[in-house]
Formats: sequence, structure tokens, C-alpha cells
Amino acid sequence: MTPLRIGLVGLGNVGGAVWRQLRTQARLLERRSGRPIVIRRVSSRSPRRLEELGISKELWSPEWSSLTSDPQLDVIVEVIGGIEEAKKIVESALHNGKHVVTANKALLATHGQALFELASRQRRHVLFEASVAGGIPLIKALREGLVANRILSIHGILNGTCNYVLSRMKERAVEYHEALTEAKRLGFAEADERLDVEGHDAAHKAVILTALAYGFWPSLENVYREGIEAIQLEDLCYAERFGYELKLLAIIKGHPDGQVEVRVHPTLLPKRHILASVNGPYNAICVQGDVVGETLFYGPGAGGNPTASAILSDLAELARASSDEAYWERIWREDHGSVRLKPMEDILSRYYLRLTVEDRPGVLAQIASVFAHHHIGISAVIQPEGHGGARVPLLVLLHDAQERAFRSAKKVIEGLPVVEPPAISIRVEDISG
Amino acid sequence: MTPLRIGLVGLGNVGGAVWRQLRTQARLLERRSGRPIVIRRVSSRSPRRLEELGISKELWSPEWSSLTSDPQLDVIVEVIGGIEEAKKIVESALHNGKHVVTANKALLATHGQALFELASRQRRHVLFEASVAGGIPLIKALREGLVANRILSIHGILNGTCNYVLSRMKERAVEYHEALTEAKRLGFAEADERLDVEGHDAAHKAVILTALAYGFWPSLENVYREGIEAIQLEDLCYAERFGYELKLLAIIKGHPDGQVEVRVHPTLLPKRHILASVNGPYNAICVQGDVVGETLFYGPGAGGNPTASAILSDLAELARASSDEAYWERIWREDHGSVRLKPMEDILSRYYLRLTVEDRPGVLAQIASVFAHHHIGISAVIQPEGHGGARVPLLVLLHDAQERAFRSAKKVIEGLPVVEPPAISIRVEDISG
Ligand SMILES: NC(=O)c1ccc[n+]([C@@H]2O[C@H](COP(=O)([O-])OP(=O)(O)OC[C@H]3O[C@@H](n4cnc5c(N)ncnc54)[C@H](OP(=O)(O)O)[C@@H]3O)[C@@H](O)[C@H]2O)c1
Ligand SMILES: NC(=O)c1ccc[n+]([C@@H]2O[C@H](COP(=O)([O-])OP(=O)(O)OC[C@H]3O[C@@H](n4cnc5c(N)ncnc54)[C@H](OP(=O)(O)O)[C@@H]3O)[C@@H](O)[C@H]2O)c1
Repeated sequence: MTPLRIGLVGLGNVGGAVWRQLRTQARLLERRSGRPIVIRRVSSRSPRRLEELGISKELWSPEWSSLTSDPQLDVIVEVIGGIEEAKKIVESALHNGKHVVTANKALLATHGQALFELASRQRRHVLFEASVAGGIPLIKALREGLVANRILSIHGILNGTCNYVLSRMKERAVEYHEALTEAKRLGFAEADERLDVEGHDAAHKAVILTALAYGFWPSLENVYREGIEAIQLEDLCYAERFGYELKLLAIIKGHPDGQVEVRVHPTLLPKRHILASVNGPYNAICVQGDVVGETLFYGPGAGGNPTASAILSDLAELARASSDEAYWERIWREDHGSVRLKPMEDILSRYYLRLTVEDRPGVLAQIASVFAHHHIGISAVIQPEGHGGARVPLLVLLHDAQERAFRSAKKVIEGLPVVEPPAISIRVEDISG
Repeated sequence: MTPLRIGLVGLGNVGGAVWRQLRTQARLLERRSGRPIVIRRVSSRSPRRLEELGISKELWSPEWSSLTSDPQLDVIVEVIGGIEEAKKIVESALHNGKHVVTANKALLATHGQALFELASRQRRHVLFEASVAGGIPLIKALREGLVANRILSIHGILNGTCNYVLSRMKERAVEYHEALTEAKRLGFAEADERLDVEGHDAAHKAVILTALAYGFWPSLENVYREGIEAIQLEDLCYAERFGYELKLLAIIKGHPDGQVEVRVHPTLLPKRHILASVNGPYNAICVQGDVVGETLFYGPGAGGNPTASAILSDLAELARASSDEAYWERIWREDHGSVRLKPMEDILSRYYLRLTVEDRPGVLAQIASVFAHHHIGISAVIQPEGHGGARVPLLVLLHDAQERAFRSAKKVIEGLPVVEPPAISIRVEDISG
């Protein structure tokens, strides 16, 4: 049978693993997909990795355009990262009638809608299993395994670096910066960690999952995002006392009125929920479907080999079934009614609040009356013992409140003479449909 | 577009849910799969559920053969359960050129190989996402999402009833029979619980997963199987002290020499592993792939709606892509070398052992020397305090031992005058690739 002919653009962490694994698994993939899958050409700006990877220099070009325009190639695998150059590669490949496989979440979160529209005009596929949750076959699960479901909500630990840092803080009782330094030393965090710890990476993935679940691409800047830089060890410990575990979560929820809430922030999760048991550099995604109920998908969210596993599954799919050209079109064109992003101020959430207060009678009454005035219920209060001194911590767990009301109440409380700002607040998510 | 025309045989728990959900999700499924999916005829021996389900009596027949022979149908959904009658239905459907979707693990574990060979001769599909792990899209993940992987091992909590019972025993500190009674009252266990608690159901699923992962159908009677009936509360508690959680696990592991070990038994799992956090009536399957590393899939393993979610995903797949007829053939025909079942006596496992011994010096030395004689290492010993009396429990955690050596050592130890039989033994699994 005729082989599926690949042009591989990018030979870094992911591209190198794709090259290696496609060689190692070549026979297995051919048997399983019915035809050989062969990398015919590669591109990177410099030839420095060719020797290490055992790639013959004849296959290499420093100009990706010589691959995207090559009539002898069926598919372009884009794994260079970044946004603008990658966009040009994908567009050029599609214009030249090629399918595209990409691991680039930043690209899709920014230009996904336009690129999929272009792909559908060109009657070509853009596959992206590797762009969310690395080696976990989550995209396939959402679009095929759960095809009979309306997605009610998605709760995802989508960034392994953040999850590693938070797990280590708690495990070793160290503060954020120490855990981050360790993560860098062990290769679980990039030299420039901001994309991860500020929540950008998780937000990119949340945009893609929103598009898959609700056929609607929220604009990245409207997605509420908070990172983990401000998390303190003591909040992880106090959370534990309330029965919660702290995770950086992406939360996506459809509402009956057509609004979808999409947000990324540190979140307290009930310890008994399985997501709370996800530790270390892993990803896990909890999906609520209206027919199936709750499912969860767990695995390595990054790393060359896991990401290659996902890219190769996309290639195997192209090798098998290029037939149903309208498939992705139907996914993106699906009529979900008029879906739109729910404004953050309108979102309901529970809150954990850590205040520093004067240690004298009447303080709690003052604070409680502020919440009462804002119609926000208090579900638990803890005053940790053994603090002595004029100022002591006071922990408050709130019932569901509208973001707007909570922010206003918090501001009033921070202004009370008996309270020393800042008040530390973390959202609580009692996961359920 | 022409609809995919279904004949539904069986209107029980699962069949009823398939009927209901196919109506509720009809438009969504049509949009996502490109054509309508319509139940044209149904069969059950008695008409008693027709009214409740709102099925017009015209669609109904008490004779399944009038459906399997109906040239106006494309697919037969078999959800009657049992083995021999179900086998006839599937064979008849295939002989008449129809695809089959089934949730019947007992049938596939017993006659799977013959049925898939028939399907391949008839160039038709038998899809069975619902037969393992209910609503979790595990079959699709294994054969498509992880297509680039050789499967190194599968560790599965495949029976929700057993997992519910074990979770409740620990949570409420009750013995097996009390937890089982509660499970029955709440509908998490059948009136006749034996298929579940004796491990048959998990063994059925293990056979199917072995066939998918290694292209080889072990015969059910050769699969080692132990149920949960003999588990005592105190073992759950002692396990906790060693840092383990007790689960009924199906374990499937490929070995480089072509042997595959397949076994179902109560197993101690390290508490830090995510499988150990799976509580209640859920299923979870941990898959180690040689490229991706460790992934885990979690969700409801039974129930009408979750099972219907899986059946509808199979129907959507048939609606979309009946094109690649050779696909399943390639999966089953895949050359894995000469794969065969590893004899249970040759399997390596760690063990937890609870002995009742005389409370006097020298006892531990005697026991240790038996293990030493059998070349089995001891990794930990605990003598719980506060027991008083002439006979006390002694807990021993062993290093890896061959099943044969362990059985022989256990027999010798049970025969020691200072030991009161029986010795309680539970396998320990330190999951890793
Ligand atoms: N690393 C992971 O674990 C992971 C996981 C999931 C998804 N991803 C995504 O996968 C993509 C690649 O990540 P990575 O970690 O492999 O990045 P990387 O290690 O930085 O590799 C980037 C590669 O692209 C090449 N490149 C850059 N610009 C190019 C251009 N204009 N033309 C041709 N080649 C060019 C680079 O080589 P030269 O400098 O020689 O050009 C290098 O080989 C990113 O989108 C990332 O978000 C990564
Ligand atoms: N229940 C679950 O949660 C679950 C989950 C996963 C998989 N499964 C599998 O799904 C299958 C069905 O399970 P279920 O729980 O739905 O069983 P069930 O509630 O006992 O229903 C069986 C249905 O089949 C009909 N039936 C039996 N023999 C028949 C025959 N010869 N011809 C036509 N209809 C016949 C019965 O109606 P009459 O008595 O009127 O004929 C009844 O409607 C089994 O293979 C089971 O292992 C079940």
C-alpha cells in the first residue's frame, strides 16, 4: 500500500521524539493502520540535531516552505512552537492540500478558529491530540468516545509543572520558590517558567477544550486566569484542615442559557474527589457528560515521548481514514445555540479566605456582618491555635457567592480597622455535574 | 442522508437506556456522525417494557431472528446478556451481513475469537466498547488513542460492585457481608452477586483486554481468578499500616518471551498510586504503554446510561466510517509473535501474609527461616500491639517471590506447631511499567 508521507517541521524535544518513535514503532504502526507511515523530509533552522537523531542530511531543509510546498508529502507535522511562524506553516500546508498534525496549543488557542475554517475550505484535517494533555487521548475521548454526550463540565489539571510545584510544596513543606527551583533542576519546569506558573498554558488548553465541547472559541484575553505564584504553604495546610487539596484547575461549564464559563485559577478540591489525588507532573481531566456521568482521564501531560504518542495516533488516524472529509467540519459547525462566554463577575463559586485579624472579641462578628450584608453565607470558620500575639490568622470557608458580591465583600473586609490586608482568597470547587 | 438502521435486541436495563438516550440525543448524534441513527425494530421475549419506554408495539417482535434476518436493518445491538442465545444472535446478524454492537463481556470472553473471525469473513464489525468498563471509552483509547504503543501492562479495577463493597468495608469499618448487604440494598450489587464478587465478571473483561492488547484470546478457565468473599476488615486495616489499599484488580502483563500473565485477585496497591484512590462503584484502568508511559481511565463501569453512552459511540462510529473494513481484521491478525498465557505458578508477586502465632520468643525466627529456605525475602514485619493472650497476629510483607515458592513456603509455615492455620495471604502490586 502507498505510504503516508510526512514532513516534520521542528526537531526539538517533541520533533526528536516523533522521529525516534516513528522508527521504533514503524512496523507496529503499519500493521495497525494498514499502510506505512514514513517521514520523508524534516526541517529545522539549524542542522545541529541531525546527527544525534541519526537523520540523513538529505532529508533536511532549513526552509519549512520547501516541505509545505512539496507535492510528495501528504501531512505536515508542526512542532516548532511559537505562534506567528507556526501559523504560516499550517496555512501554507493547508493551502498546498496537506493535512496538518500539531502539538501547538498556543497557536490553536489564538488562531484555532481561523485555521479550522481554512482546513474545512481546503477539505483537509488539522489534528491536535498532542496539544492538550500530552499523551492522554483526551481529544479522541471527547469527540468520539463521548460522542453521545452533551458535555456539562470539564475540570482539568492541565499543567504538569504547576501540579508538580504544588505537590512538592505540600509534600516537603516548602514555599513556592523552593519547590519551583527544584522543579527546574529536575526538568519539570522550563528555564522561563512564566507560561506555566501564570496559567497561560492551562488557559490555552482550556480554550481548545471549550471549542471542542461547545463549538465556540472564546478569545484568550477574555478567559479569566490566575497563576500559582502567590500560593503560600500555609494555605495548603489550612485547606487540608477543611478537607481540601489545592490544584491549579481549568474549569469549563456550560449553562442552559448558552453561557459558558471558562476560568483557570488555584482551586480547592474536596480531598475525596479523585482529581485531588493527582500528584506530581501529571495531567488529569474530569469530564461530566449528560449520559455517561463522570469520567476522568489521567496521564503524562508533557514530555517528548508522551507527546509523540499522541502525534503518532493522529498520523495513524490519517493513514486509516482520510475518507470522512466532513467529519471535523461537522464537529466545528455543530449548532450549540448562541454560545458565549460567561462574564467572570457573574460566576458562582465558593471561597476560602485567610485573614490576618486582631485577636480580640467582636472581630468575627464584624466580618460575619459584612458577608451577611452581601448575602454570602459562611460554611466554616477556623481560628488556628498557638499563634499568640496581637494579630492572628482567621480562616473562613464561604458558601456559593457571585464573584461580584465576593469581591465587594472582600474589599470592605480588607478595609476594616481590625483586619490587616491583604486577605488571601482561593476558590473552592465541590465538583459535581 | 440515509439513516443507520438499528435492530435492538434486549430491552432491559441497558436496552431501555439505549432506546431512551438515542431519542434524547438523536439530533446531536446525527449532527456529529453525519447521518441519522434510528432504532427501526426491537425485540424482547415479553412486551412488558414497551409501554414504559414509549415504544410502539409495531416495532416489537418476540423473535430476534426476525430482526437479524431483516434486510432493512444495518446493525443489531445485542443486549440480552447470557451466552448461548446471545451467540446465536450475533452469528445470525453477521451471517445476514449486519454489523453488531454488544455489551456482552461473558459472550466475548467465551466466544470472542470465533465471533471476530466470523465477522472478518463476513467483512462486518463487532463493536464492544460497552463490554469493558461501561461508559469509559477504554477500548477506543487502547486501539486508537494509544495505537503507537506496545502495551506493557494493564491494571484494572473492572468490577464496580467489588470496589463498592471493599470501599464501604473500610469506610464504615464493617465486614464483607454487611457491606455486601448494603450494596444490594442500594442497587450496586445484583440479587445473585456471585458473578461479581467471585471475580468472574472482572475475568471476562480481562480476557477481552488481553485480546486487544496482545491479539491473543486466553481461555477463561486458564485465567487465575480469586474473588473478594474471603477479605476481612482487619486485613484492610493492617494493609493501611504498610501503606497499601486493597482492591480487586485485573492484572495483565506482557513478557518479552511472549508469555502474558492474566490474573484477577484481591491486591494491595501502594496508597500513593492513583488507582488506590478509586473508591465506590467506579472502574479505573491503568495502562502502561512503551511510548506514552502511564495513563489512567476512570468512570462509571456499569449502569444503564453509562453503558448506553458506550453503545451509542459504537453506533456513531458505524454511522461515520463503515469504510475501513479491514480495520478490525488488522487488529486481531496483528503478529505479536507466539503469545501464550504465563502459568500462574511462574508469576512473580509480592505478598502480604497474616499469621496467627503463639506469643513467645523464637516464633519469628522459625518463620523467617522457612522463607529464607525458599529464597523469599521479608520486607517488613509488624506485630500489632495490645492483643494479649496466647495467640497473636503477625503480619509479614514479602519481597517478590515466585508463586510456586510462595505456596510451598506458606504450606510449611501453616504446618509449624507455633502457627495456627489458616494463614491469610494477599498479593501486593507495586505498580510500575
Ligand atoms: N515539550 C513538551 O513536553 C510538549 C508537550 C506538548 C506540546 N508541546 C508543544 O510542542 C511544540 C514543540 O515543543 P518542543 O518542546 O519540542 O520545542 P523545542 O524543543 O524548542 O523545539 C523546537 C524545534 O523547532 C525548530 N524550529 C524553530 N523555529 C523553526 C523554523 N522557523 N523552521 C524550522 N524549524 C524551527 C527548532 O530548531 P532550530 O532552532 O534549529 O530551528 C527545534 O528543533 C510546542 O508547540 C509545544 O507547546 C510540547
Ligand atoms: N446492567 C449494566 O449495568 C451493564 C453494564 C455493562 C454491560 N452490561 C451487559 O449488557 C447486557 C444486558 O444487561 P441488562 O442489565 O440490560 O440485562 P437485563 O436488564 O436482564 O435485560 C435483558 C433484556 O433482554 C431481553 N431478553 C432476554 N432473552 C431474550 C431473547 N431470547 N430474545 C429477546 N430478548 C431477550 C429481556 O426481556 P424478556 O425477559 O422480556 O425477554 C430483557 O429486556 C448483558 O450482557 C450485561 O452483561 C450490563
